Amino acid sequence: MIDAQIIREAIRKKKARKEEFLGFEYLRFSDDFHHIVRGTAIFHDCSVPGYPHIGRIFMLEKGIREQFEVPFWVEEKVDGYNVRVFKTGERVIALSRGGYICPFSTDRLQDFLNLSFFDENPDLILCCEVAGPENPYIEESPPYVNSDVRFFVFDIMRKEGGEFLSQEEKLSILSDYALPGVEVFGRLRAQDIQKVREIVMKLDEEGREGIVLKEDRKGGRRAKFITEKANLSDIKITAGNMLQLPAEYYTNRILRIVLFMEEEGIERSRRLYTELGRAFIDGLFEAIEQYKREGKVSRKFTCRFRTREMALAQIELLKRTSKHIQILDESLEKEGDFWVLSFSKVYMNMTGLLGHLLGGGLVFD
Amino acid sequence: MIDAQIIREAIRKKKARKEEFLGFEYLRFSDDFHHIVRGTAIFHDCSVPGYPHIGRIFMLEKGIREQFEVPFWVEEKVDGYNVRVFKTGERVIALSRGGYICPFSTDRLQDFLNLSFFDENPDLILCCEVAGPENPYIEESPPYVNSDVRFFVFDIMRKEGGEFLSQEEKLSILSDYALPGVEVFGRLRAQDIQKVREIVMKLDEEGREGIVLKEDRKGGRRAKFITEKANLSDIKITAGNMLQLPAEYYTNRILRIVLFMEEEGIERSRRLYTELGRAFIDGLFEAIEQYKREGKVSRKFTCRFRTREMALAQIELLKRTSKHIQILDESLEKEGDFWVLSFSKVYMNMTGLLGHLLGGGLVFD
Repeated sequence: MIDAQIIREAIRKKKARKEEFLGFEYLRFSDDFHHIVRGTAIFHDCSVPGYPHIGRIFMLEKGIREQFEVPFWVEEKVDGYNVRVFKTGERVIALSRGGYICPFSTDRLQDFLNLSFFDENPDLILCCEVAGPENPYIEESPPYVNSDVRFFVFDIMRKEGGEFLSQEEKLSILSDYALPGVEVFGRLRAQDIQKVREIVMKLDEEGREGIVLKEDRKGGRRAKFITEKANLSDIKITAGNMLQLPAEYYTNRILRIVLFMEEEGIERSRRLYTELGRAFIDGLFEAIEQYKREGKVSRKFTCRFRTREMALAQIELLKRTSKHIQILDESLEKEGDFWVLSFSKVYMNMTGLLGHLLGGGLVFD
Repeated sequence: MIDAQIIREAIRKKKARKEEFLGFEYLRFSDDFHHIVRGTAIFHDCSVPGYPHIGRIFMLEKGIREQFEVPFWVEEKVDGYNVRVFKTGERVIALSRGGYICPFSTDRLQDFLNLSFFDENPDLILCCEVAGPENPYIEESPPYVNSDVRFFVFDIMRKEGGEFLSQEEKLSILSDYALPGVEVFGRLRAQDIQKVREIVMKLDEEGREGIVLKEDRKGGRRAKFITEKANLSDIKITAGNMLQLPAEYYTNRILRIVLFMEEEGIERSRRLYTELGRAFIDGLFEAIEQYKREGKVSRKFTCRFRTREMALAQIELLKRTSKHIQILDESLEKEGDFWVLSFSKVYMNMTGLLGHLLGGGLVFD
């Protein structure tokens, strides 16, 4: 368990705060604090460690040689959002990366995860990517999830201490409980770089996000690598809402694209110039067109719930935690076995800036 | 004069500090403070107001209709750096925008400005753009200055109170003293928008930076507008040194380009996609190539001085005021009537990042 004195200090410094939601009372770490990872949550009967940051390499070959001393597993990095699923009291719930109980993921996990796992393994946490076009948080989704969402387990973590199970243990549990995992491409070594490169190229072609590399030993190092297409897609999808993200979001992705080209020896072809420019310009143009049509910049989200109560809780959470975003036009309708929730996120900063600029306003910079 | 109590408060809050340079002692405002503009300087015999910020419009027609109530003058915005030139004691000196005495501009102003102006008008300040390929600060320069620099007067300011002379007074002084001014395109009204647009298009074609609009009345409003080509060029020139600038520098320029296209109805043609992408990619590639060749990202600067003493003072100032930039490889040689100073600016952040990434390092973002 986490030292009681550190907890008191974290509360005093506002790095940890009490949350009450969906009948639970718990302590949530809103920032990294000493060795405690942001998103760590302390419930009455257990602590759930935050999911640790994974560093990114920009150069595939150099990065692998530099970071890894022993063979490593190569897995797909699925483009969704990260949840930690576990049992507390008699319920199984899902925590977001930041440590909020996610109503949507908690409501839907029964559709994708075999719950007997948690009865038999109350000390373990399933770390899952929830991905698909119908989720309440993000606009991007993998090309092979065409509707709704799916859960993909990529790690199994011990509540106590936050240690990850080994790849073998993880794969054996996934198989025993028929749990859905991310695609595993194999166990490779630094000299297999050509194989890694082929995996990345194939994922890029298929519009998938990238890979996570995990050293095959206890406490091994990890690194992620993102495809060129995913970097371009991030720019395009978010450009219309540029002010919502730190501007480094963009400079960082441009640098990734150029270093990817540099490593692969891709010529600075007209194609790449055009695609990068297109990502920015189309994204922004769409926002401007929407502003002129509707007087606001917004995106529509739809997601399916099993229970009406959790759909309402989702709206409440979004309204409470979204900064500079207004949640509007909520509708909730029963369709077959589901409650279908739809709503718009209005990006207030971009809406305000475009209104100011299109109206001829001055900007001092 | 500025209220003594405000000065004391500014010093206490570190918004104003004493400077000693080139035999002068003065007080320099390093930030805006109450109504005092950053760069304001107080000498023993006079104060020199900071040059006030000019807001930018992103939409030409709407901006002009919104901002201006009376006719306005349209002048070229020259791509250089801003200095205020004035007399203190028996010397004429040039202050940078931030309020530092600029050794280079001070050394060279005699070559471009008729100094008898200052004997006869000790209460006036010439606000000039210094532009050309051989200057110690910036890489961009106007297409019509092929070597060295030139001075372009764009405003005349009273020391007392910081008021600008009217356009008529300014033009008459420039003519009387044969002082070089920026190009003035005329006095126009909001209904002349087509004329303004033609001026901007012509400047864009010629690779010139943009225009400044000045309402033709005392204390009138002002606004600037930048051409598409200048925005693209800013991105290209600085991309190799991305970390030195706030990332908003880039998002802001992309937004300008898209709104310019939006207003002009330019189709989202392949040309523009390509040019925006090219600006980022070529700029960064050049930095990577340079890093691989030389182990650092740097730019070379050359400028011509009349006196050796001022060249040495320039190097001293650059070393003292450059953040995250190392000044290296200085050389100073007599060539004809000039002392030619050359040096490199090494961009430490970009050098460090590229070294880390190209070596396979991890980044946590």
